[in-house]
Amino acid sequence: MTTLHSIIIDSDRLFTGEDVPAAYYEDTYVKDIPPVHAVALPVNEEEVQSLVRYAIDRDLTILARGAGTGVAGAQVPLKEDALIIDLHLMNRIVALDEETLTLTVEPGVLVGEIHRYVESQGYFYPPDPASKHSTIGGNVATNAGGLRAVKYGTTRDYVRSLTAVLPSAEVITMGSRNIKSSSGYDLKDLFIGSEGTLGITTRIQLKLIPLPQARVSILLAFDTVQQATDATLAILTSGADPSGVELFERQALRYAEQNLGYPLKSQVGEAYLLMTLDGNDPKELAMRAERIEQIAKETALESHILTPEEALRNWALRDNILLGLTVFTEFELLDEVVPINKFAELIEATKQMQAKHKLNVLNFGHAGDGNVHTLLMKDDLSEEEWTERRAALLKDLYQKVADLGGLPSAEHGIGIVKKEYMEKMTDPVNLTYMRAIKQVFDPDNRLNPGKVF
Amino acid sequence: MTTLHSIIIDSDRLFTGEDVPAAYYEDTYVKDIPPVHAVALPVNEEEVQSLVRYAIDRDLTILARGAGTGVAGAQVPLKEDALIIDLHLMNRIVALDEETLTLTVEPGVLVGEIHRYVESQGYFYPPDPASKHSTIGGNVATNAGGLRAVKYGTTRDYVRSLTAVLPSAEVITMGSRNIKSSSGYDLKDLFIGSEGTLGITTRIQLKLIPLPQARVSILLAFDTVQQATDATLAILTSGADPSGVELFERQALRYAEQNLGYPLKSQVGEAYLLMTLDGNDPKELAMRAERIEQIAKETALESHILTPEEALRNWALRDNILLGLTVFTEFELLDEVVPINKFAELIEATKQMQAKHKLNVLNFGHAGDGNVHTLLMKDDLSEEEWTERRAALLKDLYQKVADLGGLPSAEHGIGIVKKEYMEKMTDPVNLTYMRAIKQVFDPDNRLNPGKVF
Repeated sequence: MTTLHSIIIDSDRLFTGEDVPAAYYEDTYVKDIPPVHAVALPVNEEEVQSLVRYAIDRDLTILARGAGTGVAGAQVPLKEDALIIDLHLMNRIVALDEETLTLTVEPGVLVGEIHRYVESQGYFYPPDPASKHSTIGGNVATNAGGLRAVKYGTTRDYVRSLTAVLPSAEVITMGSRNIKSSSGYDLKDLFIGSEGTLGITTRIQLKLIPLPQARVSILLAFDTVQQATDATLAILTSGADPSGVELFERQALRYAEQNLGYPLKSQVGEAYLLMTLDGNDPKELAMRAERIEQIAKETALESHILTPEEALRNWALRDNILLGLTVFTEFELLDEVVPINKFAELIEATKQMQAKHKLNVLNFGHAGDGNVHTLLMKDDLSEEEWTERRAALLKDLYQKVADLGGLPSAEHGIGIVKKEYMEKMTDPVNLTYMRAIKQVFDPDNRLNPGKVF
Repeated sequence: MTTLHSIIIDSDRLFTGEDVPAAYYEDTYVKDIPPVHAVALPVNEEEVQSLVRYAIDRDLTILARGAGTGVAGAQVPLKEDALIIDLHLMNRIVALDEETLTLTVEPGVLVGEIHRYVESQGYFYPPDPASKHSTIGGNVATNAGGLRAVKYGTTRDYVRSLTAVLPSAEVITMGSRNIKSSSGYDLKDLFIGSEGTLGITTRIQLKLIPLPQARVSILLAFDTVQQATDATLAILTSGADPSGVELFERQALRYAEQNLGYPLKSQVGEAYLLMTLDGNDPKELAMRAERIEQIAKETALESHILTPEEALRNWALRDNILLGLTVFTEFELLDEVVPINKFAELIEATKQMQAKHKLNVLNFGHAGDGNVHTLLMKDDLSEEEWTERRAALLKDLYQKVADLGGLPSAEHGIGIVKKEYMEKMTDPVNLTYMRAIKQVFDPDNRLNPGKVF
């Protein structure tokens, strides 16, 4: 039998037993990660394929991971003796093809690096999951959304093709450089968002668009979340075409203000909308911004068209919400999604749950696409109170999300953390066929077992 | 056992034996359609479900069809004794939801009707497959593309959810009103483009966007296809953001000119680009149009920014290409797709094949997304010459498409007409898993057997 050392020659890319770095046993959402068989860091597809064959020979489960920034517990094993394939060294930008407007990358490239690189060449890769340190492979695995999904869509909309090693160790390329296809089943979209349960991505071809030449950001302050979401709907139907519409409660931002050491431009609101418009003609942008100000006039307490410097500072606060929270407190982050017209009702319901369960709740999120990031705050609760109240609140919350026609995860994935709710909230017929498809690709349940459903 | 007459009470919605209208035995692409078991025209999902149960009980194959405008032979049965489920009476626009920007329709609604209805309400459903008489169900089955795919994408990009009756007679709803999802496998996209082989669509929820308030069309004339496609690439990367970029050879348009009785605005070119820009600010549109004229200046023989009336007349010619051909001659229409930078090379190759096989070839298509509609012209060839030369040319053509990294169908589907080429041009690993997925949903191969692969 092949040994791991014959597959991964460099000893600094292979860890077993006591040598496995502690980081692989740490996860915010999954405690008590069982001992792994080994951690291998391949640098090319052939090595990935050999590792999969190795796992087949020994009947090991496999867990592929990227930067480990996932927040649903998808990137850690649940079963003992898993082979961890860490793809973060497969981080080459392979080719920019300006004639087909595509960028070919390996899965370990950071999204922030893709942004920097393509923008330096005059192109734009719109998906921006706020976490610049997540890998593109992880973004594909979760169909990451983020800050610009309203105008530009999610990761799914920018993947032209995916190459993956299947659980059988076969290599498959799904999709192509072709822009359109009506040639057989769409396997590519089946893989996107499958959280490492169907195959291990080794190469990704992304669609690029021309970089917009101008940008303007607007900050609106409201008394209530309802007013902010009413304005959101009016903005979305106005043709003002924002790339994203971010909403946050004032309290959700205060840790970021504390962490960065400066205040949001406006301090009068309980709920804020922060949005960016992009385009190529500054005059046309100004017209669209004016349209938004007109819409906001009736209900907004304040409305600010931000200077470029202000935009940078205020967006930095938005981007710092999670980091700020992490520095100062303990919390659980959710990413439920509801139809856009139910956004305010859901947030209102979380406030009732806060009172009922005596557990503080804050909200921020992508109002333009109905994706709420509810934060459950540990504050001064004891571990026992935190565990009990949180479980009770989550039950109510996901029930409400289901009642509103929503889904447990918009962009972070189900992983293990939301699996219970996923199973409750998904129509059994859908679950049956999802499981059957898993069985087709992975009959031995070798890839990331126990996740999603 | 249930009888068909107890499922479909109205006799004018059920045909058997000699009563089956001749139209169900006619197809441009498939000759000798075998006798069918019956043709049923359900008006609701329950009837569809009962019909599927009926077919299961008697082990009949099922063929779902819409308006019958398909051009790949997907909508006619290959096996004797099929139950045809004609969905064109399920043609209700169920609901426009302005709060979620969605339109719920039954599969038999014509795309042209969707356009008229939503535009009258200030909304826009971008996919426009030129054939206004095709049904939305058929558009979903083939992932129809069309004239505005460059800026707006294809049918796939506008389907929020699909409800379908599966071969098991279970009803499944895939997708939802939610804009984002990272909650399990994407079954919806698996169904889109599956040409009626996985289930029978009974309800579709479409995404709408605000209707652009202004539009301008531009016509460019070139000496060669290569010049036209070079200009296309420059236009696509310029930020001018055309909704579509249509290319046609002069000869491909002359039947339309003859049919409509007036000439194209320009007569000097061998290859033309016709494109539309849309937006909300006429000044910004003018700026983008100007950018295109600047790009074209070096190589175009003529460049015309069309008045609204000219735009109507010249687009009518483009839309009339197929009808014009049908009136005056006999031909075969293809819809191969290649990466956009290979468009000119493919068209050039068809001209060499024309000489080699002594069979005239014309081309038009969607240069902005690499989708060529090659026309094989029967002209004065005898049936025997036509059959032989066409087969030989098609073999060369699809080989060339494959060499260029293309696909046999961009938007019409594989059906039966392109099945042979689909199987040759698709990587066997992909085919294996597509077949396995078909097996999951349709283990008895009851739905549209013998199609796609």
